Amino acid sequence: MLRARGGWRALRRCASLPRARRAVRLRVREALGAPEPADEVQVQGWVRSVRSQKEVLFLHINDGSSLENLQVVADPSLENRDLTFGSAVEVQGKLVKSPHKMQNMELKAETIRVVGPCDIWSFPLKMKKRHPLEYVRQFPHLRCRNNTLGSLLRIRSEATAAIHSFFQDNGYVHIHTPIITSNDCEGAGDLFQIETSNKARESAEKTHFFNVPAFLTVSGQLHLEVMSGAFTHVFTFGPTFRAENSQSRRHLAEFYMVEAELSFTESLQDIMQVMEDLFKTATSTVLSKCPRDVELFHKYMAPAQKDRLEQILKNKFVTISYSEAVEILKRASQTFTFKPEWGCDLQTEHEKYLVKHCGEVPVFVINYPYDLKPFYMRDNEDGPQHTVAAVDLLVPGIGELCGGSLREERLPFLKSRLQRYLDLRKFGSVPHGGFGMGFERYLQYILGVDNIKDVIPFPRFSHSCLL
Amino acid sequence: MLRARGGWRALRRCASLPRARRAVRLRVREALGAPEPADEVQVQGWVRSVRSQKEVLFLHINDGSSLENLQVVADPSLENRDLTFGSAVEVQGKLVKSPHKMQNMELKAETIRVVGPCDIWSFPLKMKKRHPLEYVRQFPHLRCRNNTLGSLLRIRSEATAAIHSFFQDNGYVHIHTPIITSNDCEGAGDLFQIETSNKARESAEKTHFFNVPAFLTVSGQLHLEVMSGAFTHVFTFGPTFRAENSQSRRHLAEFYMVEAELSFTESLQDIMQVMEDLFKTATSTVLSKCPRDVELFHKYMAPAQKDRLEQILKNKFVTISYSEAVEILKRASQTFTFKPEWGCDLQTEHEKYLVKHCGEVPVFVINYPYDLKPFYMRDNEDGPQHTVAAVDLLVPGIGELCGGSLREERLPFLKSRLQRYLDLRKFGSVPHGGFGMGFERYLQYILGVDNIKDVIPFPRFSHSCLL
Repeated sequence: MLRARGGWRALRRCASLPRARRAVRLRVREALGAPEPADEVQVQGWVRSVRSQKEVLFLHINDGSSLENLQVVADPSLENRDLTFGSAVEVQGKLVKSPHKMQNMELKAETIRVVGPCDIWSFPLKMKKRHPLEYVRQFPHLRCRNNTLGSLLRIRSEATAAIHSFFQDNGYVHIHTPIITSNDCEGAGDLFQIETSNKARESAEKTHFFNVPAFLTVSGQLHLEVMSGAFTHVFTFGPTFRAENSQSRRHLAEFYMVEAELSFTESLQDIMQVMEDLFKTATSTVLSKCPRDVELFHKYMAPAQKDRLEQILKNKFVTISYSEAVEILKRASQTFTFKPEWGCDLQTEHEKYLVKHCGEVPVFVINYPYDLKPFYMRDNEDGPQHTVAAVDLLVPGIGELCGGSLREERLPFLKSRLQRYLDLRKFGSVPHGGFGMGFERYLQYILGVDNIKDVIPFPRFSHSCLL
Repeated sequence: MLRARGGWRALRRCASLPRARRAVRLRVREALGAPEPADEVQVQGWVRSVRSQKEVLFLHINDGSSLENLQVVADPSLENRDLTFGSAVEVQGKLVKSPHKMQNMELKAETIRVVGPCDIWSFPLKMKKRHPLEYVRQFPHLRCRNNTLGSLLRIRSEATAAIHSFFQDNGYVHIHTPIITSNDCEGAGDLFQIETSNKARESAEKTHFFNVPAFLTVSGQLHLEVMSGAFTHVFTFGPTFRAENSQSRRHLAEFYMVEAELSFTESLQDIMQVMEDLFKTATSTVLSKCPRDVELFHKYMAPAQKDRLEQILKNKFVTISYSEAVEILKRASQTFTFKPEWGCDLQTEHEKYLVKHCGEVPVFVINYPYDLKPFYMRDNEDGPQHTVAAVDLLVPGIGELCGGSLREERLPFLKSRLQRYLDLRKFGSVPHGGFGMGFERYLQYILGVDNIKDVIPFPRFSHSCLL
């Protein structure tokens, strides 16, 4: 995941100098991937294991640049009391070919300096122990030192970069849509309201900081629509909020959403194509850039997920209409808690069945009943079952990953609505549409992580805002 | 700024087919940069000007992919009532070499379809008029259709990408630090507090949603410090908040900050080097990727800024100590409202003078008085003038652009402080440091934009939260 930072180039330069005075600093990842042995190398990181034998002292060092540790081989005389699991060290020595098949290089230590000792008795992580995710979640300030969270956060960083690149490579302008807003997009669940916290609270009760009540955003869609009226293709990727009192493994109070808006669309297919391309491009990038980190998840949490993903990346996503979906559900031998009926929302049990019915692959469900969807979705003007051009992307194990629609660009259809929304249709209105993808759900899906709290650095949910 | 989306490749493929049935859709930017003429091209966008002559109808079309418009030449018979300034159109025709020196290509229209008309009487933007920024700021939903805001937002998007790339190319892990937090990092100004807005407000007064009072973040530093203890190099780039009742041209209630944290630092120079590299890399990228957009600002708002920037990119930033700064100020012939004195904060007038004194270039001021800075900054253990390893980067016209420090990694120095902050020092503590850069101020500086409200898509400040 981490690209070379010139460490090797610097090392080569030094090697060719008459007398390199200072050791070249390498990240663990660079040291492991070094093409050739080298003298006078320095590596810094945290000790993941210490094994003291009669003739030799073995250390494993990790600096977060990769899942793999660098093996350090030292003379037992270099051992000291502070050289424990968790301590921060700086090791200087020779980088040599490792005799072990599993690794390319190891470091023969000449000096080991303990930069920061670790009180192993109170340190909640233990050497060579696989801690359950529920356990490490209690330590928001230390869980990133755990292998699983380390891999997760490297993958999250790479997926973030891949999503940005996807849009930029396709000519989208990135927009920082606001976090604080006086709108409530589609009344999606409960909102967080914002107040100033200063002493003048009493007077603030009457006069809001922004003169109007202000909330944390639930979606950047309306702001993106504004921008798609100038740049044609725009996207945003930022935090969104729901004040839902939920302890579910699929919901957070603060989560990240990727949203895109496209002008001059011709049909819902234009939107679905972008959703599918986004998913496939980001996923291929993550699989190829973080193979070891991804393997950790696919090995221990979702054994068959790798093959399934590779299959999915090769094939076109399945598309069914809402009406077809209801027919499939009605024909099902399974009994549902909620009886499937045209005009009713699809429940989680229904989504699960549909995904399974289609072969445990991502499924687009399109053209939902007019009465189920918000006012801005484009009227399909069909009948007698009246629908709008909306789409949900359902994925195995998660349910809804993306939601999108064509937006109603025709002024007469929107009359008697919000003035600014109307303004956007009065001055050069164009057919357009967009979608949003829950980033945490995306990570849960591709990695097979059961609980959404484990795919975000600092989870916020009801009753919990640690750190 | 926008990269080719395969439009040209698609066009070539079509050209080689026996009979290309449908026109190839090109963005304006692609059409303008096309290497050769082409038949059957389609361009969509908004009309920026209409000029009807006896023999020929001229249109200028913009789709937000570039500052430049595409000139469309049509037979007057294609004119129609709805074809006005601001209307959305779809033009089909032949892309031909333009006879004008100022542009490469123009579109000879065969058909023009008005996709969405524009009510020019109520449309607040007028044809070929240079609207003041204060004027367009009143129309948050339409100002992106203005040239200046269009260029600004393309530059902002490109600068965002450049900053992400800089860190990723240098081995940093990107961390989404939380927006909602129960901490108050360094008590930086007034905070926004969060409450749920649902009906059960009364009961919520007693039991907070998160069980504890929660605020909007003022900095991701503490969360980055957590992460730098596992990944060595981390960064974040997200919104931060201040509930300051300010109408200043340098402050917003919601703004973006780039923050980085590095472990195993050896001195403050390590941090300053990253700040300088970040500034230079991002700025070079923006200058080379958006030359036309940047030119608009440098031409109309900050005439000499381009040459100054190019000089600055070539030279090393100036560094002075806080003590030297105070001496310079004391020797100044200028009288200050605040008398410069060792131990007092530098005021805006002082910062301005220092930057001028150094030749209107970016200036690092280092080693501030111990008593002026927060507890977590690293004690320089000097005297009798006791300082900490803190640094501010001052730039002309803006003042403080970045602030950073080495963090105190030594447990005894931090005793009697926050428990979690101490924990981070107990388990493998390492010397580290970091900094933050205000992204809006960065844009103000490189572009010479006077008011911060004009460099963010949707500005939020006291008494104003439009849209």
